[in-house]
Amino acid sequence: MSELLYEGKAKQMWSTEDENVLRVVYMDQATALNGKKKDVIKGKGHVNNQISSLIFEYLIKNDIPTHFIKKISENEELVKKVKIFPLEIVTRNVAAGHFSTRYGVEEGKKFNKPVEEMYFKSDELDDPFINESQALALEIATKEDLNRIWDLSRKVNALLTDLFKQAGMKLVDFKLEFGTLEDGTLVLADEFSPDNCRLWDLEDNRHLDKDVYRRDIGDLTPVYEEVLNRLKKVLNK
Amino acid sequence: MSELLYEGKAKQMWSTEDENVLRVVYMDQATALNGKKKDVIKGKGHVNNQISSLIFEYLIKNDIPTHFIKKISENEELVKKVKIFPLEIVTRNVAAGHFSTRYGVEEGKKFNKPVEEMYFKSDELDDPFINESQALALEIATKEDLNRIWDLSRKVNALLTDLFKQAGMKLVDFKLEFGTLEDGTLVLADEFSPDNCRLWDLEDNRHLDKDVYRRDIGDLTPVYEEVLNRLKKVLNK
Ligand SMILES: Nc1ncnc2c1ncn2[C@@H]1O[C@H](COP(=O)(O)OP(=O)(O)OP(=O)(O)O)[C@@H](O)[C@H]1O
Ligand SMILES: Nc1ncnc2c1ncn2[C@@H]1O[C@H](COP(=O)(O)OP(=O)(O)OP(=O)(O)O)[C@@H](O)[C@H]1O
Ligand SMILES: [Mg+2]
Ligand SMILES: [Mg+2]
Repeated sequence: MSELLYEGKAKQMWSTEDENVLRVVYMDQATALNGKKKDVIKGKGHVNNQISSLIFEYLIKNDIPTHFIKKISENEELVKKVKIFPLEIVTRNVAAGHFSTRYGVEEGKKFNKPVEEMYFKSDELDDPFINESQALALEIATKEDLNRIWDLSRKVNALLTDLFKQAGMKLVDFKLEFGTLEDGTLVLADEFSPDNCRLWDLEDNRHLDKDVYRRDIGDLTPVYEEVLNRLKKVLNK
Repeated sequence: MSELLYEGKAKQMWSTEDENVLRVVYMDQATALNGKKKDVIKGKGHVNNQISSLIFEYLIKNDIPTHFIKKISENEELVKKVKIFPLEIVTRNVAAGHFSTRYGVEEGKKFNKPVEEMYFKSDELDDPFINESQALALEIATKEDLNRIWDLSRKVNALLTDLFKQAGMKLVDFKLEFGTLEDGTLVLADEFSPDNCRLWDLEDNRHLDKDVYRRDIGDLTPVYEEVLNRLKKVLNK
């Protein structure tokens, strides 16, 4: 008997017979501007599930601890249930989007060192930007948790910057979520797809991510499928 | 010959015969809501100059390097000219104001450890909240500068929390600015007054700071004069 535990903007989380395992259903839906823009996008759930599965398998092979168990259908996967830290962990290699408007920096400026940001996941509060000292004061995570989270994020950045480069793409920025397993182990959770990162074509800087939807540049699914096909080629899948 | 170099919301900065020395004129003006609310407040310049002078003298006596030279009239002081870091350095001992609304925390909650925040001083960008990694990427300051800034801020917090406690007030939060002298020395600059901090009466939590103006609670100048008188008593001035 499977129960819907949570329906988010892009995924449903279902219980399974094993109380420590969840079934994730990727939906054909896109949102932007904190949910103000919302559309059904045919094929998106399917392609995101495939991209995220490939990426998580790649990270696991490279010793990153994650929640991922396996893909079980075109739009479903099994993951270990975690207690999510209510934090969006953002890494930026190149200025874009909010960073550019907020700090008056041209899109495309490469940083000497990646910029690291956190947002407090709270629909009520509109996911405010938060710094480490505030996150500690609000007891969202301990100093040790945050050190571990940033250590893993930096490793993920190094691994994926390299992977996407091989696939002809620049990894501009990305958002991660982390959680803890039953036994307390801290692992990478949620998804990694063009919904949660910016990818620019290495040749012509073409957007290969959700900015295609946010900025009404064209159809999303064919773009995501191009990302998937390029990754498959590099990973020999 | 004295030239007006800068007119801010609360002070004018004038050149002097010594190119490394500025004359600060405290004005009878208050603003709030990023300048949207603005009023002439008779006596405010005078009392703020006196409070800030007392505080800077006290900090200097306690080995904090500052820009302060001396008070030269009721509403004027001389300071060493610095190159200001475009950063507002905020320390919070107790939740209040923006912090409370932004993170949904009740005003008055005491933090186990002070919360430390930075804002990028930019009228154009509306002084956005900024974290250390972003400030480094934007080359607003070096890691060494920021370490020094926070080291001094923590010392200022310890000294002033104690001083205000003796004067029957809780130092809830405060904003500092730092800059570098000609020779590169990093010093505390700008002012310290109830314009830039929150002070609550120890007995009844009455606001003894600019919130009286922001929240239209009553007349500002008598409240600031009470703060001044309490400080004078503690400092035997
Ligand atoms: N392994 C996991 N165990 C438990 N929860 C998870 C796990 N992985 C991800 N989640 C959470 O499940 C939800 C996934 O749904 P979705 O990505 O659609 O949410 P969302 O619309 O982005 O909303 P939000 O992230 O703001 O809750 C997220 O809340 C995410 O934090
Ligand atoms: N020793 C110093 N040398 C040079 N500039 C200084 C010094 N101390 C303070 N300043 C700067 O002088 C100005 C003081 O004016 P005021 O406090 O009225 O500014 P403000 O309205 O708060 O505006 P803002 O701080 O946003 O520029 C500030 O810009 C402050 O950063
Ligand atoms: Mg999500
Ligand atoms: Mg000022």
